[in-house]
Amino acid sequence: MRTGTLYGVGLGPGDPELITLKAARLIAAAGVVAYPALAGGASFARSIAADLIGPAAQEIVMEVPMALERAPAQAVYDAGAARIAGHLQQGRDVVCLCEGDPLFYGSFMYLFARLSGRFALEVVPGVTSVSACAARAGVALVARNDRFAVLPGPLPEEELSAGIARAESVAIMKVGRHLGKIRRVIAALGLEHRAVYVERAGLAEEVIVPLAEAPEVAPYFSMILVTKGTDPWL
Amino acid sequence: MRTGTLYGVGLGPGDPELITLKAARLIAAAGVVAYPALAGGASFARSIAADLIGPAAQEIVMEVPMALERAPAQAVYDAGAARIAGHLQQGRDVVCLCEGDPLFYGSFMYLFARLSGRFALEVVPGVTSVSACAARAGVALVARNDRFAVLPGPLPEEELSAGIARAESVAIMKVGRHLGKIRRVIAALGLEHRAVYVERAGLAEEVIVPLAEAPEVAPYFSMILVTKGTDPWL
Ligand SMILES: C[S@@+](CC[C@H](N)C(=O)[O-])C[C@H]1O[C@@H](n2cnc3c(N)ncnc32)[C@H](O)[C@@H]1O
Ligand SMILES: C[S@@+](CC[C@H](N)C(=O)[O-])C[C@H]1O[C@@H](n2cnc3c(N)ncnc32)[C@H](O)[C@@H]1O
Repeated sequence: MRTGTLYGVGLGPGDPELITLKAARLIAAAGVVAYPALAGGASFARSIAADLIGPAAQEIVMEVPMALERAPAQAVYDAGAARIAGHLQQGRDVVCLCEGDPLFYGSFMYLFARLSGRFALEVVPGVTSVSACAARAGVALVARNDRFAVLPGPLPEEELSAGIARAESVAIMKVGRHLGKIRRVIAALGLEHRAVYVERAGLAEEVIVPLAEAPEVAPYFSMILVTKGTDPWL
Repeated sequence: MRTGTLYGVGLGPGDPELITLKAARLIAAAGVVAYPALAGGASFARSIAADLIGPAAQEIVMEVPMALERAPAQAVYDAGAARIAGHLQQGRDVVCLCEGDPLFYGSFMYLFARLSGRFALEVVPGVTSVSACAARAGVALVARNDRFAVLPGPLPEEELSAGIARAESVAIMKVGRHLGKIRRVIAALGLEHRAVYVERAGLAEEVIVPLAEAPEVAPYFSMILVTKGTDPWL
């Protein structure tokens, strides 16, 4: 018997119109969709694709606990991978919904690590939140021979500082409760006037302000872009 | 009289199915499309969107010379911006076609620099070639608190080396005639077994091989991905 294919499908950063034609086609045709959700809460990935999921599709929800330790989340992905593997073994394709791009800080990688090699697997790339934040903020990200760095906000202060210093353009992801620290680092480098804060790019609740005017408390879905170029593309 | 809006529309890395729903809608409705082409040659951007462009659409072609000096290309973008501005002033929207994401090493930035502020402008983000190369190569790009660096191949050897050393994952763009140098740098860092060479990701002529097996001569549309993680996402 032929086994199914696992599709890891990028949905883009939140606006349903930023889904690719390929992702839309695969989701609309899917008999089984899988996605992560916050434990006891909603699934951002599912909400992006909601209008495309067929009424008869089976849904595999992976409720990921918000814990600092990794073990509980690992158990959830183990269980999710086992359910997905069950469908694949029966010859059914499974479409896994992934916010943004699946391989760029995406939770799809936990399934990828568990199921690749064992089953046919195809990743459909998606628009990243970095591209979306730059587009909405009107910030020319990188041109010519600029170096670009992407740094997660939880990194230690010295790491962030070194990373920002060594690139022409920087995106800092996963800002959340690290906003105060990130601000200090950027101010110490004298780059506050070059930094923009973007929250929920492309969604109804979007916030885009210079970093100096950012709120005191940042949600998880926020990013800071630092660009140092002085019209390098002219 | 109402002036038109300039749309900078990302087309993704080459596969027409990786165009977003929004980009497809805007291109199909466009009365005027603009795009760069190699002087005397074809336009990669136009070829990606070809099936969507309406038969009555006016086309503005910017023939960009392949010169090392910037002045000739600047003159082409000056002239293109002026033609685009003419349409916008007449109240007609213009859709500028951009390979990948418009603000990520894209030539759209040259128009952006010339026309933003003067006209309403909207950037529609696209799937980058980085996401596409990772997806096709099956490489988990970055997870958790990994640092990600994007480095253009023309950078000097020391810059490349320092940039690769300081990130968990690296994408090297614009490989072309810099392949030999990039190979030396990666070998000196002992990372050749961690490097994959991707040429024309998602297109019929796609090549994906370990860096050690890369061809001697690389085309412009190629990339090298270096990932150092040892299953950090498990
Ligand atoms: C786990 S990562 C997922 C990234 C996703 N796979 C991608 O390709 O963009 C989550 C982080 O992405 C960023 N992010 C995702 N969507 C966003 C949005 N709509 N606006 C701003 N930041 C966003 C935030 O920095 C957030 O902390
Ligand atoms: C001027 S940059 C344009 C990048 C584009 N704006 C993006 O978002 O990906 C051109 C470089 O992108 C990379 N590239 C673009 N398309 C590619 C593809 N299909 N396969 C491999 N590399 C590609 C190559 O490194 C090439 O030198």
